[in-house]
Amino acid sequence: MKNILILNTGGTFSSEASGHGLAPSITGDEIMNRLGMVSEDISITTEDFCSLDSANIMPEDWVSIAKRIAGSLSEYDGYIVIHGTDTLAYTSSMLSFMLQNIQVPVVVTGSQMPLTMPLSDALMNLQCAVWMAASGVPGVFVAFDRKIMLGCRTSKVRTVSFNAFESINCPYIGEVNAFGLQLYTDRRVKRTGISLQTDYSDKIAVLKVFPGMDLDIFSFLQDHGYEGVYIEGFGLGGLPFLRRDITAEIRKASDRGLPILVGSQCRYEGSDLSVYETGQRIIDCGGIPVYDMTQEAVVTKLMWVLGQTKKYDQIRWLFGSDLVGEVTLK
Amino acid sequence: MKNILILNTGGTFSSEASGHGLAPSITGDEIMNRLGMVSEDISITTEDFCSLDSANIMPEDWVSIAKRIAGSLSEYDGYIVIHGTDTLAYTSSMLSFMLQNIQVPVVVTGSQMPLTMPLSDALMNLQCAVWMAASGVPGVFVAFDRKIMLGCRTSKVRTVSFNAFESINCPYIGEVNAFGLQLYTDRRVKRTGISLQTDYSDKIAVLKVFPGMDLDIFSFLQDHGYEGVYIEGFGLGGLPFLRRDITAEIRKASDRGLPILVGSQCRYEGSDLSVYETGQRIIDCGGIPVYDMTQEAVVTKLMWVLGQTKKYDQIRWLFGSDLVGEVTLK
Repeated sequence: MKNILILNTGGTFSSEASGHGLAPSITGDEIMNRLGMVSEDISITTEDFCSLDSANIMPEDWVSIAKRIAGSLSEYDGYIVIHGTDTLAYTSSMLSFMLQNIQVPVVVTGSQMPLTMPLSDALMNLQCAVWMAASGVPGVFVAFDRKIMLGCRTSKVRTVSFNAFESINCPYIGEVNAFGLQLYTDRRVKRTGISLQTDYSDKIAVLKVFPGMDLDIFSFLQDHGYEGVYIEGFGLGGLPFLRRDITAEIRKASDRGLPILVGSQCRYEGSDLSVYETGQRIIDCGGIPVYDMTQEAVVTKLMWVLGQTKKYDQIRWLFGSDLVGEVTLK
Repeated sequence: MKNILILNTGGTFSSEASGHGLAPSITGDEIMNRLGMVSEDISITTEDFCSLDSANIMPEDWVSIAKRIAGSLSEYDGYIVIHGTDTLAYTSSMLSFMLQNIQVPVVVTGSQMPLTMPLSDALMNLQCAVWMAASGVPGVFVAFDRKIMLGCRTSKVRTVSFNAFESINCPYIGEVNAFGLQLYTDRRVKRTGISLQTDYSDKIAVLKVFPGMDLDIFSFLQDHGYEGVYIEGFGLGGLPFLRRDITAEIRKASDRGLPILVGSQCRYEGSDLSVYETGQRIIDCGGIPVYDMTQEAVVTKLMWVLGQTKKYDQIRWLFGSDLVGEVTLK
């Protein structure tokens, strides 16, 4: 018998019409009624963890979820987190870092339509999540639209369609087809057990560069206690270095111990600062490359890393390391 | 005879290896040598406009390009702008706003590999651009990987592959196949002629929201002369309104006349603030929806609109209007 715990945090999955548009309200009991009996070998417990539109999920919620999971590992063989889609990929990314080396599956899921509506994708997503949670494959995953994705590689790329999420720069872990749940992974339980580490810093900033961007914001960030900055550059990671020289700002910030990460605002195929002159200048100035990580993984890894260390060299080293499958290093 | 002017601004297309990675250096003469004779009915002139990695293209360059085109319309039947891919979609978007009602084709193109390298996509992209520039179809377009896209709908989504650009939330204008250039458009020259308008403001900011984002940046933006802000929200445009209430910041800013635009960090299918409670609060607080525009179109339209007016109501009205095909309004 596999014991699965479902943590219901709200989101579209659990939403119903309110006076101001859709808002979360459905409870675990209602979810269990709709799910019905899944298998004689799977026992499911639900817990109404919170009831939030995921736009309102905050880092402190990530800590609560991670601690709830880590604190009950003797009771359950797998976990499902029902979550709004808006910040689902941020949550699945951060849980990947907070729950490193977890020995059981943690499957984050949600839906584009509420569970109680006709034609909804909610029940199918939950069923896929249940099978993945019972699979024994260790790690943090997302189950959505019959695909199983690595939690730290998932991004929301579509706002309406059921295939809202994609696994970015990383193959799917599995999918559901006519043969049921097919897994394309050889992930195994590691000898070292879970390493629960929930410290983080939320004093970070994300800057999306555009032509003509004013650089005075860098002084603001340095003077107001920011501990890390992620710049979404152009293409492979290019930034202006002539008339508005962002690379000089990166040098100033790095010299003062403020780490500046540089990636790409392009969704697919990642950044590579070694190809163009502009990228090489960024490295020379102390910019830290994030390679092919998703924006969600960069943001949460930066928060998490700053919870472990404030030292520039260690931060740079951690961003040059693949902790949970979040980055492809050459 | 069709007379086409090619403005070479640099970019990967015109790059060669330098001591610090690839940097632009190839001139129009070399480009013409490689292109050779295209057709007896097409006469091509090249002009070495600038030689920049497009990470270094600035708003003032957009003005120069727009004025160069608008000032030579009596001489040419179509234009090609050879441009680096990094900010190509920003340039094609801004040219769409600056050159409204242009009566001839302006085709922005570039390549993922330099013209002089084996297997390069540069020559094919340029050939497609030539045919589009000679087509007589009025407007600003992007030609890339055998696709013709509306300039204000194009985004760079891949950093390495030749299909780097996509037409976002908008069908292709045309494509090149075994029958040559196929056009799927009924765009016609309008009776009103070109409306060259190159005023802009670059005192804008782009904020990509993430869970736990510090809100002190809004005070900074209000106190430092910023004239417009674009917030990339979650999903359909959701923003936190409980523990870190961004909607309250939007209300404060809007009350002080600082327009706040709200869209989605999801690449496809756009934002819709009417669906969820969180979206409706944004509207109630004065947030201005950008619907299904690309980030590049939002940024450049905001800059352009602020060049025409600083009045909140007019800005809101212009963002509720489809000026050049950049937005789908219901």
